[in-house]
Amino acid sequence: MRRYKIVLAYDGTNYSGYQLQTNGIAVQQVLEEALAYLNRSPVRAFGSSRTDAGVHARGFVAHFDLDKPIPPANLVRAVNARLPADVRVMKASYARKDFDARKDAKGKEYRYGIYNADILPPELAPFWAFQHRPLDVKAMQAAADYFVGKHDFASFAANPKREIETTVRTIFSCTVKKAGPKILIVVKGDGFLYKQVRSMAGFLVRVGLGEEKPEAVRDLLRDVPPRTARVPTAPGRGLFLQKVFY
Amino acid sequence: MRRYKIVLAYDGTNYSGYQLQTNGIAVQQVLEEALAYLNRSPVRAFGSSRTDAGVHARGFVAHFDLDKPIPPANLVRAVNARLPADVRVMKASYARKDFDARKDAKGKEYRYGIYNADILPPELAPFWAFQHRPLDVKAMQAAADYFVGKHDFASFAANPKREIETTVRTIFSCTVKKAGPKILIVVKGDGFLYKQVRSMAGFLVRVGLGEEKPEAVRDLLRDVPPRTARVPTAPGRGLFLQKVFY
Repeated sequence: MRRYKIVLAYDGTNYSGYQLQTNGIAVQQVLEEALAYLNRSPVRAFGSSRTDAGVHARGFVAHFDLDKPIPPANLVRAVNARLPADVRVMKASYARKDFDARKDAKGKEYRYGIYNADILPPELAPFWAFQHRPLDVKAMQAAADYFVGKHDFASFAANPKREIETTVRTIFSCTVKKAGPKILIVVKGDGFLYKQVRSMAGFLVRVGLGEEKPEAVRDLLRDVPPRTARVPTAPGRGLFLQKVFY
Repeated sequence: MRRYKIVLAYDGTNYSGYQLQTNGIAVQQVLEEALAYLNRSPVRAFGSSRTDAGVHARGFVAHFDLDKPIPPANLVRAVNARLPADVRVMKASYARKDFDARKDAKGKEYRYGIYNADILPPELAPFWAFQHRPLDVKAMQAAADYFVGKHDFASFAANPKREIETTVRTIFSCTVKKAGPKILIVVKGDGFLYKQVRSMAGFLVRVGLGEEKPEAVRDLLRDVPPRTARVPTAPGRGLFLQKVFY
């Protein structure tokens, strides 16, 4: 028996998220099927996060044990040969036997992409949210600056009551950059509530449209009870889990 | 009644090609449905090419007539509002009443993309062919040079007997460029046989793998009867129709 850590990339368009669901196909399901074939018995692959339906990943992390260990490089080839093209093991390594992809994570980096032009080219549609009205990127960055630090993000959770422990999280950095029609929000933090990044992105878009002032973020971070009604959830397809830090 | 010329982009993944088919959904079908709604009566949209199942477009051209003309800019917005996200009208203009998207075309530009690395990232899978064995780009360019000029391309047609008139075509240019793991074949010509670009790309990959010499292209262009058995058809998903010249 050996424990493995893998880095997973996927196009989430056709999945209900990473975690096994009663509705829809989960990334975990196709991964576990490929691993079970290799291991000749069922394998449970524990992920670093859930990720929502339609959300993508470039650096998702999972851990699992194999009864019949094989070298990590061979594992990458063998698993990829059995996975659909929209899920790929990018890296694999042996891990210590108590390594836990979720509990050991020190932080995560997400990227949210918004295409800001008259028309969204079809080839970008699976990976970019779309806004045809001009966005004020400076105002968005000013608002993003208020996210940085340790705050109660209850107003930026889809359902604050769903969070089992606390709604306090620490954001290490949050930048908004524009390159032509592409606006990228990159956010790093120690952890994220359910739909938090999409709520932050949804609110930043409202700021970019002039519907809210940047300072509104500061107020929402103080509001108890939370005021999620002012905070729309941006579509899942614009979101990538970029990296998990250990 | 006014005639329009439009430039169309589409992600061909979920389509049987541009042209109406008995099997699968064609891009023409979703376009004509959107136009018929606007026009309040059926509209036939004639394309510059057929394009195969799974092939993409950035600069496909079509023409059609509307009984109830509207300004081109309004047409773009109105049609895009009714099209699925994987098909977009990028531009529209009035055309002279005998403009024909297919017959008036003076040439076309295609781009074929091959991702040459150990692993194909999932987000590129819809738009790039994949080859994990290293490709010799210099040999591919040397082979591509033989395509340029006026030749009988019967050996590079999926079914030479299907071509109604002649299998002679003129290639204006054919370049093979590498940027990191991305290899792009760009080919311009006055017209293309059924699956010609994919056959050219398929053969260039064989040259890149060292399975054929660059000079083999010259010989195949002279072979009568054609020798299509040596020429594999590269997958449709790597192909984009980039531009149609008038």
